[in-house]
Amino acid sequence: MDNNTYVVIMAGGIGSRFWPFSRTNYPKQFHDVLGTGESMLQMTARRFKDICPPENIFVVTNKDYESLVKAQLPQLSDNQVLLEPVGRNTAPCIAYASYKISLLNPNANLVVAPSDHVVLKEQVFTDVINKAVAAAAKDDVLITLGITPSRPDTGYGYIQYINDETKSIKKVKTFTEKPNLELAQMFLNSGDFVWNSGIFIWNVQSILRAFRQYLSEISEIFEEGASALNTPEEQNFITRAYSQCRNISIDYGIMEKVDNVYVLLADMGWSDLGTWNSLYTINNKDENGNVIDGEVLLYETRDCIVKTPKERLVVLQGLEDYIVAEYDNVLMICKKSEEQKVKEFMADAKSKKGADYI
Amino acid sequence: MDNNTYVVIMAGGIGSRFWPFSRTNYPKQFHDVLGTGESMLQMTARRFKDICPPENIFVVTNKDYESLVKAQLPQLSDNQVLLEPVGRNTAPCIAYASYKISLLNPNANLVVAPSDHVVLKEQVFTDVINKAVAAAAKDDVLITLGITPSRPDTGYGYIQYINDETKSIKKVKTFTEKPNLELAQMFLNSGDFVWNSGIFIWNVQSILRAFRQYLSEISEIFEEGASALNTPEEQNFITRAYSQCRNISIDYGIMEKVDNVYVLLADMGWSDLGTWNSLYTINNKDENGNVIDGEVLLYETRDCIVKTPKERLVVLQGLEDYIVAEYDNVLMICKKSEEQKVKEFMADAKSKKGADYI
Repeated sequence: MDNNTYVVIMAGGIGSRFWPFSRTNYPKQFHDVLGTGESMLQMTARRFKDICPPENIFVVTNKDYESLVKAQLPQLSDNQVLLEPVGRNTAPCIAYASYKISLLNPNANLVVAPSDHVVLKEQVFTDVINKAVAAAAKDDVLITLGITPSRPDTGYGYIQYINDETKSIKKVKTFTEKPNLELAQMFLNSGDFVWNSGIFIWNVQSILRAFRQYLSEISEIFEEGASALNTPEEQNFITRAYSQCRNISIDYGIMEKVDNVYVLLADMGWSDLGTWNSLYTINNKDENGNVIDGEVLLYETRDCIVKTPKERLVVLQGLEDYIVAEYDNVLMICKKSEEQKVKEFMADAKSKKGADYI
Repeated sequence: MDNNTYVVIMAGGIGSRFWPFSRTNYPKQFHDVLGTGESMLQMTARRFKDICPPENIFVVTNKDYESLVKAQLPQLSDNQVLLEPVGRNTAPCIAYASYKISLLNPNANLVVAPSDHVVLKEQVFTDVINKAVAAAAKDDVLITLGITPSRPDTGYGYIQYINDETKSIKKVKTFTEKPNLELAQMFLNSGDFVWNSGIFIWNVQSILRAFRQYLSEISEIFEEGASALNTPEEQNFITRAYSQCRNISIDYGIMEKVDNVYVLLADMGWSDLGTWNSLYTINNKDENGNVIDGEVLLYETRDCIVKTPKERLVVLQGLEDYIVAEYDNVLMICKKSEEQKVKEFMADAKSKKGADYI
């Protein structure tokens, strides 16, 4: 464990593809999605316990989720919880955390990770992160963890790498946004594409250098106000700063543009758990291929995922390949193959029925 | 309106084919099933307002539903609410009411009707009942209302009648219990079968005579204890009497055996609303054939019946021909064509999950 290692957990999303379970007032990362007794955020934080000291873990979230984060991770000091006034995608979030941490420790090596992914092989994860941190400490490189694809998933970004077998950390050739199915199948067949996990490792000076070069309008905002960071003025400054930042992802703003990007292949039992199908995939099935989290009686029902409140008995007959999800004031029944429509449902629920349902 | 006309509303059932909406502690007849603002029981009682004086309406129910009946029909005196200690099917229920009313008025003409049927053409109903009552007052006949079948329904009993076009009240040839689909189709094609509505009209002396002849073990019980009826001793006597009565229907015990049974054809927009499909059939459909009672967003959803609490938003995608019903602590999703399994679901819910769910 290295005192120069810092972790930035991004916990500001609302997980809309996981509606109606993930909700604006209680998003996915705060749920015990897998039924293990820990929320996704708690699992994510615990995953770093052998990687850095607890005081080096920072969580960036929306100000609306401040109390949720502090309740779930009471070990964090106030200075370790970074509050965004509004979501502006990953680039401003990472800039904020990077500038703040650079002032605490200019030699910091950062691990940036989403709060709502699952990693089944935790020891592999620890080893991979330590390896990446060592590489980032040594060279001016931006490293992302790549996952060998098991299916032509159209929900992930893909990374093509230069397959030099003598090197464990591979140079990236191209980043690709979410492909269509045909392209995803080609990527899968080619063998030199991996899924972009969205977990990044770099030295804080490397990422700040990249911001100055490729997202200078963001770096200028933070450099101008840097003296407010880690002071009582920080929150006021951040409110102003975010009002000036545009919405842009780190992938689009930096990773796709720089030439010192590397990927470290990580066979760590990873899923972004971004969708109902990914939750279905990662869970154990009953003898009829159903994933059940709820009190159910099933008849002629196959290959479904059911996630419903324990206090309600759910009787299903004659359903095949459906999502059945009830949470709070919403019940959704949708074919698994049509889950991309969940965002449309959510938008319709808001516009036609009211904001209480999203 | 004739002071000799009495109405017996049978309201002791639990409507198990309508689970999970109909529940042991709140059966179907007490629900506003059609969303009209009145329960089935209240609609049934109101249907007789032009047929007999209000003090001539009697309701037979389970003692567990005493407060529900009295709350929904506050105009009834205590002596008009007959409480069964336990359900013993229709024969003991009708015997109890008949003996009790015969002591109040030995010339009574009785109309016996279930509490959970729907009649859309109320004026036709009034006319038909008055006609039947007049016939029953004149002759020693047992009359049932017959419904011209519109489909080969396997959920109803059928009555074959002798089609003498000179007579409006037809002599019954045979009673048939619920047939299989092939037989039901034959009945439908033949043209001389009607559905047995379970609504009966007879003079009280005619039905008591039939009890003495065909169900003497029941008539003896009530004749022996008749002096307790309409006195403070009535309930104690009834508790004893029901413990001695076997479970038997009026159809099986009397109607199928006697030879003075007649049927009056009644085109009165009738449904027993016994099942989800009958509720589907009687309701207005949206442009995709859906019957909706709830707050819904529908996508690629056709020919479904949805009955869910107003406070829950229900999002359905890709469902065709399903029942989606939520009530209290149970959610059921079942193909419309498989609704006969509802009784199995209910039995399983009780045995595997507990009595709270039924």
